[in-house]
Parts: sequence; C-alpha cells; structure tokens
Amino acid sequence: MSFENSDKLTGYKERSKELLSENAIALGDMVVIKTDENEFTGLLMPRYESSDNNHIVIKLSNGYNIGISITKIRTITRTEKQTTSRQEGPFKLFEGQKNIHNSKNSNNILKTKFKIALIGTGGTIASKINYRTGGVSAVLSASDIYGSVPELKNYALIEPDAFLNEASENLRPADWTAIAHRIKDKVAAKKYQGIIVSHGTDTMHYTSAALSFALQKLSIPVVLVGAQRSSDRPSSDAALNLLGAVVFALKAQVSGVFVCMHAGPSDDVISCHLGTRVRKNHTSRRDAFESIDTPPIALMRGEIMEMNAQAESFSLNKRDETEEIKFKPDFDKRVLLLKYYPGFEPAFIDYAITTGYRAIILEGTGLGHVGKETLPLIRKAIESGILVFMTSQCIWGRIRMTVYETGRDLLDAGVIPLSNMLAETATVKAMWALANSDSPKMMVKLMKQNIANEISISIPI
Amino acid sequence: MSFENSDKLTGYKERSKELLSENAIALGDMVVIKTDENEFTGLLMPRYESSDNNHIVIKLSNGYNIGISITKIRTITRTEKQTTSRQEGPFKLFEGQKNIHNSKNSNNILKTKFKIALIGTGGTIASKINYRTGGVSAVLSASDIYGSVPELKNYALIEPDAFLNEASENLRPADWTAIAHRIKDKVAAKKYQGIIVSHGTDTMHYTSAALSFALQKLSIPVVLVGAQRSSDRPSSDAALNLLGAVVFALKAQVSGVFVCMHAGPSDDVISCHLGTRVRKNHTSRRDAFESIDTPPIALMRGEIMEMNAQAESFSLNKRDETEEIKFKPDFDKRVLLLKYYPGFEPAFIDYAITTGYRAIILEGTGLGHVGKETLPLIRKAIESGILVFMTSQCIWGRIRMTVYETGRDLLDAGVIPLSNMLAETATVKAMWALANSDSPKMMVKLMKQNIANEISISIPI
Repeated sequence: MSFENSDKLTGYKERSKELLSENAIALGDMVVIKTDENEFTGLLMPRYESSDNNHIVIKLSNGYNIGISITKIRTITRTEKQTTSRQEGPFKLFEGQKNIHNSKNSNNILKTKFKIALIGTGGTIASKINYRTGGVSAVLSASDIYGSVPELKNYALIEPDAFLNEASENLRPADWTAIAHRIKDKVAAKKYQGIIVSHGTDTMHYTSAALSFALQKLSIPVVLVGAQRSSDRPSSDAALNLLGAVVFALKAQVSGVFVCMHAGPSDDVISCHLGTRVRKNHTSRRDAFESIDTPPIALMRGEIMEMNAQAESFSLNKRDETEEIKFKPDFDKRVLLLKYYPGFEPAFIDYAITTGYRAIILEGTGLGHVGKETLPLIRKAIESGILVFMTSQCIWGRIRMTVYETGRDLLDAGVIPLSNMLAETATVKAMWALANSDSPKMMVKLMKQNIANEISISIPI
Repeated sequence: MSFENSDKLTGYKERSKELLSENAIALGDMVVIKTDENEFTGLLMPRYESSDNNHIVIKLSNGYNIGISITKIRTITRTEKQTTSRQEGPFKLFEGQKNIHNSKNSNNILKTKFKIALIGTGGTIASKINYRTGGVSAVLSASDIYGSVPELKNYALIEPDAFLNEASENLRPADWTAIAHRIKDKVAAKKYQGIIVSHGTDTMHYTSAALSFALQKLSIPVVLVGAQRSSDRPSSDAALNLLGAVVFALKAQVSGVFVCMHAGPSDDVISCHLGTRVRKNHTSRRDAFESIDTPPIALMRGEIMEMNAQAESFSLNKRDETEEIKFKPDFDKRVLLLKYYPGFEPAFIDYAITTGYRAIILEGTGLGHVGKETLPLIRKAIESGILVFMTSQCIWGRIRMTVYETGRDLLDAGVIPLSNMLAETATVKAMWALANSDSPKMMVKLMKQNIANEISISIPI
C-alpha cells in the first residue's frame, strides 16, 4: 500500500472534513490558517476516530502539533512553501535526488525512483492514546504511521507494510526470525534504497542485535526506529525519528542494521546507532537510546547526515546492490541470562543444568566476576556441557578476567570472556550461535568472532 | 592501631632503607631529591616486600608516583613545605581545624581531636600487583592503606581497623550485617567525626545500599571508598578517593551512607554519591561510579567540598552527635533478581516458587514490562505468597506501569512498582525488608516507603 492509496483526510469528519474538502486540502499539504488573532503555517495532520470534529491539526515547523478550532478559522489555504529550508546539497548519494527538492509539485515526488520499505511491527510509534483508559495501546498500521508523518513524501516513496502489531516486550526470538525473513524478501526485491522497521522501544535493541546476526552482508541499510511518545501526542518524537531513519536509509554509504532515535531531549538531532552496540538507558526520555563504548555512527540534523569520523574504525559493509545476503535467521532459546548479585543462590545454576539450557550468559560484576561460592556450580554446568560466557553489569567498558584471582579462577573453570559485548547483545548472539552451530566448539568460535561490531575495536578509556 | 604504630619505612630494605634512615626521613615526609639532571619534590611512599631495594618512591604533587634509582640520588632532604596550596578557608565545620593547616610540624596533627575510623574490608584499594602472576590480589590491611596515603595525616587522625580482607564480588548479605555491626560500634564510641569503609568496587554500591537501610538515623557520615587501580600503581586512584572521603567525612553537615570516587578521568574532582542511588557503570574507568537520576550530593576539589545546591531536596539527616541510631542490620537472602529478556522462560518463576523464595525483583524493560507470556506464572507466584516487585533495566528513569496495557495487566496481577529504585538497590532493600517484617503487608509497606532516598523525589526528565 502506498501513500497514494491512503485516505486523504483520515479522521476528519463532518464540519472539519467539509472545510478541508471545500479548500481542496489533503493530508500532508502545507497550509496557512488565519484566525482573528493569529496566522499558523504547517502540515495538515491526520486525526483519529476518537477525536472531536471541531479541530484541525497542523504540525508547525518546530515539530509540534497544534489543534485549531474550526469556529476560529477565518481562512485556510494550501501553499506551495516547503518546510525544508535546504533545497539542495545534502543529498549526494543518488542521481536525481536534486529533482525532489526542486520540485514545486509534491505529487511529482511519488514518481521518483527512491523507495523505502517501512515494515511495521507495533510499539509506541504505532500507538495512540486510549482516551477511555488514559493508557496507550498499539492500534495503528504502518500505513497510519506514514500518514501521520506526511513530510516523509518529500524524501522518497515510502511503501508501508503492516507486518506485526505487537508491543515490543511481547516479541520473542521467533518474531526476530519472522522479521528477518520479511526484510530478506524486501532486500531480494532490489527496489528499495533502504528498509525501515518501526518497532516498540522496550526491546528494540534486542531485535537490532538479532537482525545484525541474522542478516549479514546486507546490500542496503536496515534501520529500526521507534518513539517514546505516541504519534498522536503533540510531544511525539515519532516524526523526527522516522525522518532521521529515512535520511540515513537513503544517504548512508554503508549497509548493516542500525537504530535511529533522538540524540538529545530537543527536536533537532537524531542519532544512528550500530544495531549491536545500542541500549535503552532511560525509561521515558526521547534520547533513551545510547551507543555503548562507541559514538553513534551518524547524526542527522534535518536532511543533513554527518557520518562519524570514527565510523571507519568499524567493520561495516559498503552499500552494494550486488552483494549477496548471508541469511541466518534462526535462534535457539535455550540460553539463560543470569545477573549476579550478592546473595545470588548458586543452586540456580543447577536449575539451568536440569532444564536443558545449552548456554548461560553471566552478567557479572566489574571486570567479569561472580562470588567464589558460585564457582563449584559453574564448574558443574561446564562439565555437563553448558557453555558459560561472561559479560559485565557495568554496561560500559571491557571485561578483563586476568587481573584478579576471581577472574582467573573463572577462566580456569572454562568460563569464556566476551570482551565488551553488551549482556543483551551477548544473550541474543548466543541464541543465534546455538541455532547456527553443529558443535559446542563451533558455537564458541562464533561467540568469540566479531561478526557485527558486537565487540568494539577501540573504546574510550 | 594508629598510624603512630606502623613501621616508619615499610618495605624499604638494605641500601634504600639506610639512605632514608641516615637522612632522618620517614614515610609521609615531604622530601626533595636531587639527581644530576633533576630535582623532585614529593611525599615518601611505602614499598612492598616484592619490590627491589634500589629505588625510592615519592608521590608528586600531580598525584603520580615515581621511583628514583638510589644510584642516581645526589641528595635527599626532608622539607617543611606542605603539598596543599590552600592553608585555610575550606574547613569551616569544626573549631580548631585551622590549627591543622597552620601547623608546621606534622606530628602535632595527631594531637588534634579530629578522628576518622577507617574500616578495611578488602578490594583493589587494599590490593597490590602480584608480580609473579601479573594479577592483583587483596593483601594489604587498613593500616597499609593508611600508610600508602601519607598525606591523610594532614587532615585528621585516621584509626584503621583491618576488619575483612575480601574482594567485594565475594561479599554476601551476612557480610553487610557484620560491617553494619562494626560501624554501629564505632558510632557508639562517639569519638569519630566520620567513618570510612574501604571496599572493593565490584559490589560497593550493593553494600552502600545495604548499609543505608541497616544504619538509619546515623549521627555522622559513613563513607564507602574504593579504587579502580591498586594503591601501588603509579596511576592509582586510591589516594585521591580516600582523601575525598576524609574531606567529606570531616566537613559534611549531613549524616547517612555515601560513596566517594573519582568524578572524571583526571585527578582533580571526587564525587560523593548517595548510597542508594549510585551504580558502577564502567568496568575499568576511575569515574566508573555514577549517581543515577540525581546529581552527586557533593564534589571535593582537594580540600574544598561543594555541596550540591539540590542536596536540600533529598531527605538527609543533619550531622547530630545526640542522634540515636536506628539499627536494623539483618538481611534475608530469599530474594530473587530476575532480568527479563526476549526468550525468557516463564517456567523460571516456577523454580522460584518451589525453592522457597519470598520475593522477586523483576528487572523489566522500559517503563516496567515483561512479555505477556510471563503473566500467568507471575500470577501464580503472587497467589502462592511471593511478593513481586518491578524495576527497569533501563537504569535511568522512573517506571510507570499505567501507560501501556502490559503494565496495567501486571499491576492488576499484583506486581508492585518501585518507581525509580535501582534494581540493585531494590534487591538489597527487599532482602532487608524481608528480614525486618513480620508480614507480607509490612514488607510491602517498607518497600514502598522512601527510607534512604532510594526513590528520588525530583529527577531530570
């Protein structure tokens, strides 16, 4: 489904719909609204079923939405003025890009060859407030997301695909596999400059890590994007995050799996993070996502993309249409993530042994430690064939198990250190490595190998 | 044991010891060493048994230690020059403090009335490199720590007490109880301005949280301090951390439990964190410890203590000699910390039910969620009498379980939200609340009550 097919006045009813129709205004049009006191210029936004019929909502150039009572509107007119202040320049990758920005008639844009696939999986970016309960639930399709960020049509033809509709805390490894298949099919179609996956933020970093291992040697960028505030709230970060994702997906010269979210609390910069090195570090802030032990790979300021100067130190594939994907979409859930704490009951590990787990990711303290009382059970687990890996609950920094006696004892017992791999990424990778190995030896080899920058080469000390 | 009784030339042997004795130089003296090419001024540092006999080690004013070959030394003389550039001013709390700084003879200092108890528990701050293995192990007593930071004698009489000698990853809730008893006894002696606990960094934030609940209504500050590099390394952060802890313990007008560690990578500022709101966020950096959702309560620049202007928003007791301690030192280990991740096996919760756990701290995603597949087992746990609490693996920010359907379903099932309590602090607090409750109702009440700023009132958004 393309934007062309979506309802031109979604959510407007009765008097408000009549007013817009009379003036030949459609969603996404730049309009000037005059009231007795003020003049507002902005993009016409869609409304939702539960909204009243007496307001027209436009997105101002500062990114905020306002609703204007139709009883106060004196005139409403469509204007040709573009929101963007930069008519050309930043887009350098693709021939013909300039035409988009010089176009006077936005309908022409849909005829360009630049296409982005937008795979919807659910989450806040696809949510709206339930005015009955005051809560937020996932109800909008990818098509609705696209409709709620009309300025996207200035950049490329977005083809939404409402694939899943699930809060991300409910996603399971089987969903990673399904999403990977969907992406692979779109990549194989060879008609997109990039693929965007809209996703709930709770586990977006787990999914981005999973896709980083499942989809190797991608020919184009795959960008996950979410929102911390739902799209129908004036303070929503959905539009700018999606815009940043589109800019990166179109312009980046690299392929791989990435996450685009706000870089700071204000609406000006979007960070692009490596899929294996990103973490949700705040429950509610727009800039909740942070790159760990590395800077973001790129920043987007409006249409301008700045690649990080250090990006060359990462092993990233170049965008390359002819690249053949290495597709390994399976995950095996028999991996246990255990966070250590004083008072941790070592017998817990016995449970893992008897219930068929094949690997344990320890989230140890400091440089990669657990209390010495745990050592006998760790030895027992390893002797019974379970692979035990070490990460740190510190979040930042590399583990080093040769410095202290505790670490050396754990190494002697056969615990395998995972450098500065994030515990979340390590858990996902172990599920992937388990599904893609025919022996413990092969799994260990995969875990130690730096496949998708999950072990970062240079980190600030 | 006081500094007076410790060996005046610890670790120096044969020629190096003779050279120092001939010149009437003792550990901690400010000395000027002249070689053919250079002149060095610094404090004489102790050496360790495994060191060679041919070098004399001094700490320069920039905080680094250097070793000077005795074959190159032309003259070595004791000087009266003080390291500190600020002779008076910053110390305002205690009468007589000025005398310390104006004293020409450092021995006089030991006659002042300012006393700090230094309880050693082990860790890197009490460690040295094992030159055989290249690793670090805990071998020094509190007395040794004191000896290795000679400038401490400029501030107060430090009374070391080598209580434990354990890497902190090996400490258990029973050790928190023992440390709490030891502190209580020192507080009861009413002869200290403050109490410092030297501690390994791996679990220092767990212990600081534990002591915050065990030792309420303290009359004086209790400050935990550690080091990320052992005391005998030139780059050790031990001396400045300890100095910061001493300055805070002497000067702070508040009581409670705190953690003092480097504020940044360079040797100039020490942060003082609230014991319940601090986390080790880096495996190796000196500034690994961060206050979460709050600024540090104070910064120390040398002798200068700057209380944070927002400190008043915390509920902190005033330093008050007459205050009667509320002593609740017991912890019950039957608390399980579970970090949620996609692929998490809900049956795990069954294990907790059958093995006698009394409370579960969930480290959920985002605003306080776990996958819906987990809900039936959580209901079962709650029905069987286990208390289930929610925190967030995001680290920063408050949970809010009323926003999304997942959160509301968990609330309906009886899961108890813990606002912005850190998962580590929540785990420790649950062990404490379990030991100090005679009913689940009372435990829930204690968990929800803000006892030691474990729920912060105002957080940056």
